[in-house]
Amino acid sequence: MNQPDILQEVDLHQLKVTDAFLGQYQRLVRDVVIPYQWDALNDRIPEADPSHAIENFEIAAGRKEGEFYGMVFQDSDVAKWLEAVAWSLCQKPDAELEKTADDVIELVEAAQCEDGYLNTWFTVKAPDERWTNLAECHELYCAGHMIEAGVAFFQATGKRRLLDVVCRLADHIDRVFGPGVNQLHGYPGHPEIELALMRLYEVTDNPRYLNLVNYFVEERGAQPHFYDIEYEKRGRTSHWNIHGPAWMVKDKAYSQAHEPLALQQTAIGHAVRFVYLMAGVAHLARLHKDEEKRQTCLRLWDNMVQRQLYITGGIGSQSSGEAFSSDYDLPNDTVYAESCASIGLMMYARRMLQMEADSRFADVMERALYNTVLGGMALDGKHFFYVNPLEVHPKTLAFNHIYDHVKPVRQRWFGCACCPPNIARVLTSLGHYIYTPQPEALYVHLYVGNEMAVPVSGKDLRLKISGNYPWDEQIDIAVTSPQAVQHTIALRLPDWCENPQVLLNGENCEGEIRKGYLHLNREWQEGDRISLTLPMPVRRVYGNPLLRHIAGKVAVQRGPLVYCLEEADNGAELHNLYLPKESTFSLIEGKGLFAHKVLIQADGERKSCEQASSQALYHYDNSPVKTAAKKLTFIPWFSWANRGEGEMRIWVNGE
Amino acid sequence: MNQPDILQEVDLHQLKVTDAFLGQYQRLVRDVVIPYQWDALNDRIPEADPSHAIENFEIAAGRKEGEFYGMVFQDSDVAKWLEAVAWSLCQKPDAELEKTADDVIELVEAAQCEDGYLNTWFTVKAPDERWTNLAECHELYCAGHMIEAGVAFFQATGKRRLLDVVCRLADHIDRVFGPGVNQLHGYPGHPEIELALMRLYEVTDNPRYLNLVNYFVEERGAQPHFYDIEYEKRGRTSHWNIHGPAWMVKDKAYSQAHEPLALQQTAIGHAVRFVYLMAGVAHLARLHKDEEKRQTCLRLWDNMVQRQLYITGGIGSQSSGEAFSSDYDLPNDTVYAESCASIGLMMYARRMLQMEADSRFADVMERALYNTVLGGMALDGKHFFYVNPLEVHPKTLAFNHIYDHVKPVRQRWFGCACCPPNIARVLTSLGHYIYTPQPEALYVHLYVGNEMAVPVSGKDLRLKISGNYPWDEQIDIAVTSPQAVQHTIALRLPDWCENPQVLLNGENCEGEIRKGYLHLNREWQEGDRISLTLPMPVRRVYGNPLLRHIAGKVAVQRGPLVYCLEEADNGAELHNLYLPKESTFSLIEGKGLFAHKVLIQADGERKSCEQASSQALYHYDNSPVKTAAKKLTFIPWFSWANRGEGEMRIWVNGE
Repeated sequence: MNQPDILQEVDLHQLKVTDAFLGQYQRLVRDVVIPYQWDALNDRIPEADPSHAIENFEIAAGRKEGEFYGMVFQDSDVAKWLEAVAWSLCQKPDAELEKTADDVIELVEAAQCEDGYLNTWFTVKAPDERWTNLAECHELYCAGHMIEAGVAFFQATGKRRLLDVVCRLADHIDRVFGPGVNQLHGYPGHPEIELALMRLYEVTDNPRYLNLVNYFVEERGAQPHFYDIEYEKRGRTSHWNIHGPAWMVKDKAYSQAHEPLALQQTAIGHAVRFVYLMAGVAHLARLHKDEEKRQTCLRLWDNMVQRQLYITGGIGSQSSGEAFSSDYDLPNDTVYAESCASIGLMMYARRMLQMEADSRFADVMERALYNTVLGGMALDGKHFFYVNPLEVHPKTLAFNHIYDHVKPVRQRWFGCACCPPNIARVLTSLGHYIYTPQPEALYVHLYVGNEMAVPVSGKDLRLKISGNYPWDEQIDIAVTSPQAVQHTIALRLPDWCENPQVLLNGENCEGEIRKGYLHLNREWQEGDRISLTLPMPVRRVYGNPLLRHIAGKVAVQRGPLVYCLEEADNGAELHNLYLPKESTFSLIEGKGLFAHKVLIQADGERKSCEQASSQALYHYDNSPVKTAAKKLTFIPWFSWANRGEGEMRIWVNGE
Repeated sequence: MNQPDILQEVDLHQLKVTDAFLGQYQRLVRDVVIPYQWDALNDRIPEADPSHAIENFEIAAGRKEGEFYGMVFQDSDVAKWLEAVAWSLCQKPDAELEKTADDVIELVEAAQCEDGYLNTWFTVKAPDERWTNLAECHELYCAGHMIEAGVAFFQATGKRRLLDVVCRLADHIDRVFGPGVNQLHGYPGHPEIELALMRLYEVTDNPRYLNLVNYFVEERGAQPHFYDIEYEKRGRTSHWNIHGPAWMVKDKAYSQAHEPLALQQTAIGHAVRFVYLMAGVAHLARLHKDEEKRQTCLRLWDNMVQRQLYITGGIGSQSSGEAFSSDYDLPNDTVYAESCASIGLMMYARRMLQMEADSRFADVMERALYNTVLGGMALDGKHFFYVNPLEVHPKTLAFNHIYDHVKPVRQRWFGCACCPPNIARVLTSLGHYIYTPQPEALYVHLYVGNEMAVPVSGKDLRLKISGNYPWDEQIDIAVTSPQAVQHTIALRLPDWCENPQVLLNGENCEGEIRKGYLHLNREWQEGDRISLTLPMPVRRVYGNPLLRHIAGKVAVQRGPLVYCLEEADNGAELHNLYLPKESTFSLIEGKGLFAHKVLIQADGERKSCEQASSQALYHYDNSPVKTAAKKLTFIPWFSWANRGEGEMRIWVNGE
């Protein structure tokens, strides 16, 4: 086991989140989501589809008789829950919860096969079919999540039991896959193992894991194609047929396996697969110092962010394949924008920041976190979005099948329950996203209130960030180190902020701005205070002229938050609202559900719908439709759909 | 056989179309479409999917060995071709073509079973399964089309052979279906037999056909449901599974069979099924003097036209089920708007006009004809649209699966080849749509140039309509009757025309306007001339405020023609074009492909896309995007996509 390195995650999850806003989300995860998901994993939620995930492990462990039930990737829900518990224990110790998790880990260990193999679907249902269908069957995906859980549980608690389980699993995988004549020359249909093995490498320092990731990445998309080879070998059987026989095998771009990554030019296929893969590749590129892979990470990042990213930090513009479509094709109402994809986007961004502290990565990470990721969970912590539309007209959803995937309100649980536990684990591990400690500087990406310490030259640099982000413009960074420490603190200057101001101990201070970070170097000592002011005027956002779905439309943003109109505040048929160029914005303090949130109002216009239903569909020349002044009320988009079913839209007709 | 009644079609198809514009379409059908489709039916088009339709009849007739090939409704292509030939022979006799048709009719007769049954799919593939799957298998649909062909061929040529075949077929159907204990209490999954039997009733005066239609219509949607009964009876087998097992059986609204028609409130389900059904119901309601059915026709017409009709006369706003979706849900780019649905809409409108001469029916009929129906066929007569979008961005189509059904250019032929022969038969039988002769008046719905005679009180009222519709405002109606005839000529005043002017023999004339028709009563004599001027300024069209897809947009129409922007004239990324309120329109004479067509230009604006691909997706505050003056060129929408692949849009950002 190697020594903690400044770049490692070891300490970042240990920082204490003190943020009023995101702290509340962490509490929700701890008090509501984790217990609720535990009940779900144990089939104790009457109104939800059964999960059976724990029982699958009990059957695989020989502790129960029964049949496997659930998706081929059902195990991953248990793994993600364990990871969320691990991070949550860092924020607030909880002996009972830890005991529950220990019991689950004991169960997982008991379900592991002698040779290290661990997957309840195959162990229970088809032990002879292990590793025969990488393209479709998520064995490496489930392994990846369990490895992440093992690493997290070790980092959070110091307990090795699950780490040892996943090391045995990784060793087994390393024996099965590789270039050897008796090894499978394959790789996962759903990437995840790559980023997981990189994390395992960081805590174990075992180079076999790094090399195995490299093998998976380099083999991906090679010809003759592994998906075809294994498909023929197993007699052309297929696990998924919803889009036609063996479509996952055939549509290789769906899993970014249509050609070697080095040749790929665009973010393509299933959005979650893409960002999970790229998070692993970015991690590998950094630790392997692999310039070609770094260039691939940059090239595909740029395509995604410059051509295929929603203003909400959502990715995946179509339901079919939960996938990217093509450059500048970003429909607002038929969009997919899976919550998990934006979580994966944060993971990818974080690895890019570790490679190079350039605020463009952090800007996207913040956009994803404060909009799609937070929006994925209701303010009650009990309801979740899988799909995150930018525009919803509920009356239409049930009748036009292009909206089959869109829900107008968050749902309690999903048959394919990937999103809720994923939201739980990212919200409990925010420390990983707030900072990147590098030898030359401590980079601060997100202004989430927290207390942390980072080792610098044998001393601890301790910081406390406070404020009321993302609502207030003032951020206070207090140095609380007991000993003076010479170091650079590099503060991200967000892309949405035009005139950031910084005072050091109440005085103007000099600092160099490099790639979006203000670098402040000095001998920091207890009592030093950085006062960062990020002015947050309401800003209008316009689309690139190549974005045809938002031509003639405008969005409203304040700080990192994208706002939207809801029917509850503005009446129905939101497309009849108009935001004129000259109207000014005012901030109002939210009440009730919106307490402690900032809402926005503006003087707009509204075309009357009165008697519209008795008028013709089309009329000539001067419109008989009256336009009247109308106060428009915008709420933060992440908080939409907390008042029942109603229309919503981000992009408003206007100037 | 009854005597010709003034309301019958007997003479209307005999009128001679002399119209420069639609006459050219009729010539295309005669010279290109009918021969091409004949080759297609005989599998002589190398690049098209095989049809096998003629060979299926040869096999069923025992003249050839072989297997059935094609759709379960493949026979209908032969029937529709025969109908188009019949109508075409009225316009221009052609001995060779008539001989070919006679041979086909002989073949059809040979394929008919002893008991009158006629359907090659069942005869060849599954003779024991006749009438076991009405919900899915199109037997009555195919019968309907053959009946229509038999009626048309008799009306066009006086030849009874096919008429006798279809009477035997109808008699067979009348024995199989009905309320008797040994009869099937069923009705077609795809309506068509209803309107066909009504036509057969009109030429044969056999009341059994009328009563059979009434049975089919009244039984539709009754409980216990016939689809379920036959499904159970045949052991739950299903012919179509593309949307899940037996989806046509289960989704009863798809075929307007979810409840009795008398209870239905909205145009619903498969759009072609809906309009075919309603055409038959309207015909029945009139001849049966059935007030309840008339109310149903009006109620569902109103829902369709006031809530679910595209500006192009297209219906069916979604691809899934080629179906209506819901009120005011009319997306422009994911629309279906099948060509056949607009043809069926014309058929429905025509029956409504026969029931009551109210120009609102004719306005919709004209809109469908001059826009979607004409647009369904390329200017070369060799390429066809099945789906008729109002907006296309070709670069995106292949990547976002919501566009899977949309083609950016017309295709040569379709695997399911319903549209091309349907376009052929409607364009060759325009006479049916131009006039409704009633005892009280001769209603003129469409200003298509033609020569016709209608019997009035034992004399002939003969008219010749000329002009250059829809390009020129002047329409000349000359009376050419050898004897003076006292009668009313009722001229439709189109909804798109604000100030129609009429001169009678060069003088102002008085006439009463009733339900959109100007009634001119006098003793008409040879030499009388009505000069109708329908001013055709370019008009802006706006959507009802409940139409969210076209909020902030404007369309351009002149006369009955809807115009559009194409990339070929206006450059790419048409969403960046803007039509300001104050800009005026100028007419220009088209050239080349657009010879004899009127194009429209206007001073507009264009947001620059220069360097857009190197800019960020979103920008704040004042847009850096430059707007420049840009001449906008609009072409008639029916003529789009005749210059290769490119963008097109009808609804333009503007005021």
